[in-house]
Amino acid sequence: MPTPEPATSPLLVNVTPPYPVHVGQGDSFLANAIAGLALPPLSQVVVVADTQVAEHGHADRVAAAWRARGLPCNTLLVPAGEDSKSVPMWAGLHERLLRLGADRSTLVCAVGGGVVGDLAGFVAATFMRGVPFVTVPTTLLAMVDAAVGGKTGIDLEAGKNLVGAFWQPLAVVADAGMLATLPQPHFREGTVELYKHALLANLPWRSEMHTRDGAVAWPAAWVGERQLTVLRDAIHVKASIVARDPLEAGERAHLNLGHTLAHALETITQHRMRHGTAVAYGLVYAAMVGAGNRPGTHAWLPDVVALARWAADAPLPHASFEALWTAMQRDKKRRGGRLSFVLLNEPGAPDTDTGIPERVFRGAWDALLAEFGGDA
Amino acid sequence: MPTPEPATSPLLVNVTPPYPVHVGQGDSFLANAIAGLALPPLSQVVVVADTQVAEHGHADRVAAAWRARGLPCNTLLVPAGEDSKSVPMWAGLHERLLRLGADRSTLVCAVGGGVVGDLAGFVAATFMRGVPFVTVPTTLLAMVDAAVGGKTGIDLEAGKNLVGAFWQPLAVVADAGMLATLPQPHFREGTVELYKHALLANLPWRSEMHTRDGAVAWPAAWVGERQLTVLRDAIHVKASIVARDPLEAGERAHLNLGHTLAHALETITQHRMRHGTAVAYGLVYAAMVGAGNRPGTHAWLPDVVALARWAADAPLPHASFEALWTAMQRDKKRRGGRLSFVLLNEPGAPDTDTGIPERVFRGAWDALLAEFGGDA
Repeated sequence: MPTPEPATSPLLVNVTPPYPVHVGQGDSFLANAIAGLALPPLSQVVVVADTQVAEHGHADRVAAAWRARGLPCNTLLVPAGEDSKSVPMWAGLHERLLRLGADRSTLVCAVGGGVVGDLAGFVAATFMRGVPFVTVPTTLLAMVDAAVGGKTGIDLEAGKNLVGAFWQPLAVVADAGMLATLPQPHFREGTVELYKHALLANLPWRSEMHTRDGAVAWPAAWVGERQLTVLRDAIHVKASIVARDPLEAGERAHLNLGHTLAHALETITQHRMRHGTAVAYGLVYAAMVGAGNRPGTHAWLPDVVALARWAADAPLPHASFEALWTAMQRDKKRRGGRLSFVLLNEPGAPDTDTGIPERVFRGAWDALLAEFGGDA
Repeated sequence: MPTPEPATSPLLVNVTPPYPVHVGQGDSFLANAIAGLALPPLSQVVVVADTQVAEHGHADRVAAAWRARGLPCNTLLVPAGEDSKSVPMWAGLHERLLRLGADRSTLVCAVGGGVVGDLAGFVAATFMRGVPFVTVPTTLLAMVDAAVGGKTGIDLEAGKNLVGAFWQPLAVVADAGMLATLPQPHFREGTVELYKHALLANLPWRSEMHTRDGAVAWPAAWVGERQLTVLRDAIHVKASIVARDPLEAGERAHLNLGHTLAHALETITQHRMRHGTAVAYGLVYAAMVGAGNRPGTHAWLPDVVALARWAADAPLPHASFEALWTAMQRDKKRRGGRLSFVLLNEPGAPDTDTGIPERVFRGAWDALLAEFGGDA
């Protein structure tokens, strides 16, 4: 029986070994993509999903695709939400895998958003010192960002993703059809990271997201094949940077444009703020810091102000600069005691700077509060 | 100021990137070896040691060597013993690192035996998705085996090392002078793994360990430079295999000669049996399984019987074959539901076999019980 081919050729993430990112949609896309993956000999597949994703039937559809490939497949569910990225949940998944008879030939398949991908990926990285991993992102955020690049991890009281590993999947299968069940705030959140990738690589279609009155919207024309092209372009930006710097020794930090403030806002709001909202404010902050650092640059500032007005679903907290500064100092990207901040003097030209004076960060925070009011 | 050179040139473990194993002794060896290591820019060093190693002053001496290199150095202690290889101890070390202000430029330095090396190595593998790691083994077992090769991990209720990662150190510094404080049972335990490496590579000095009356002993001539040579030879066996197969995809399994039974004995005795004792019985068992599988081979069986008589410090438990078989099936090396067993038809020629009939395993267990009596 010939192996069915996925409808389109996949993107390739050029790490060692390289792996494909299949992006598609339609009734047979998922099954065909999974049937066609090149994988080592496997004893079974364990799907890890959250209860919400399971309710939409995505976990069952993926499990069915694995079984159609001739592999036994069980499903382990975790509660939906960031709280599942915990040490006990992660350790418990190892025990649950053992009870299913999992061994080193067991493939872990994440089906979900960033939380499930990070958690299941970290389980795959550490179960018996590492087993094969495939990820099926179900949110726009996970498709354009989390699913590609091998970052896995869980949270501690002290902060998010403080424990983890780089563990590349053997394949990513992104079914854009799953976005139909995605609530609007989740969709906008993913759009923020997609926009960030368009900024980093200065992709031409970014301008299509700006309406004539200066607002941001998901263009009505971005459906069907056009939507897949936009998704592939955004994923390609991430895949290229990851391939050049898989372990975040340098250039990969550029992907954290907007994320220094975002992580600090998440800390300050005790993670009640959605990641996409925090990154939207963070992109504005990055532009303001950059403009403060090098006056006359950052003409893209109004663009991200418009993006944040469209995408943010929570007000900017009216925190003191001191509280913000403390939270920013905890950032993982800190090396050798210096805060490394990602700047984008113009779209397509990201850079990192460890020498920005504190007064610039303070001035930008004042400007951000002035722009978005704060919830005082 | 010129960088001081270690007295001898190190062994090299040829993984990517390669790393040195410094083996030496004498007053200035440790400080010189640490001073001469090629390392990335670091913000601080955190030594992880157990209370027993700290009592002997080894942790302080290593910390002093790091400070002499100009790096701030703190020490985190854990209780001595296998119980420290737990999820809570591992998670807690992440929190303790954060309280010390550790970031991605912090180097974790293990000072201890296999337990501390596995635990601290796994912390280094997962703290902020991985930080630089150096290990200073303080036992013979850790020097010739655990310190080289990047296996790190912790235990679950269900078994040892079920959670972990491959995380290569940037360097190994083995100070044979530390063996002076090692209790005799620990020394014999390390000798078992050293003997196993000599068997795997058919090293000529193995015969020196057999006395004329057929017993095994640590040769009186193996002191000073001669001891260092033997250590380096044994480490070289492991380093060569690791370099050819860093992630245990194939050949590296040969290092598990004797370990399928050893892990089962550890499970059956609830880890009250010393690893070296379990491996000594395991080497005899491997020879008996091999001889049962291919009669006329395994002339080295009497040698390892003598080794076990000398090294084992606990009786062989009189377990039923069924209990043993169940425990052996849990082995991590199992792939695709088959038990993969390491055979050594003659010294220097290890091989793995997934097709050995159950009756051969049963017959060998009866033979082992007959040889070592059991504690019934």
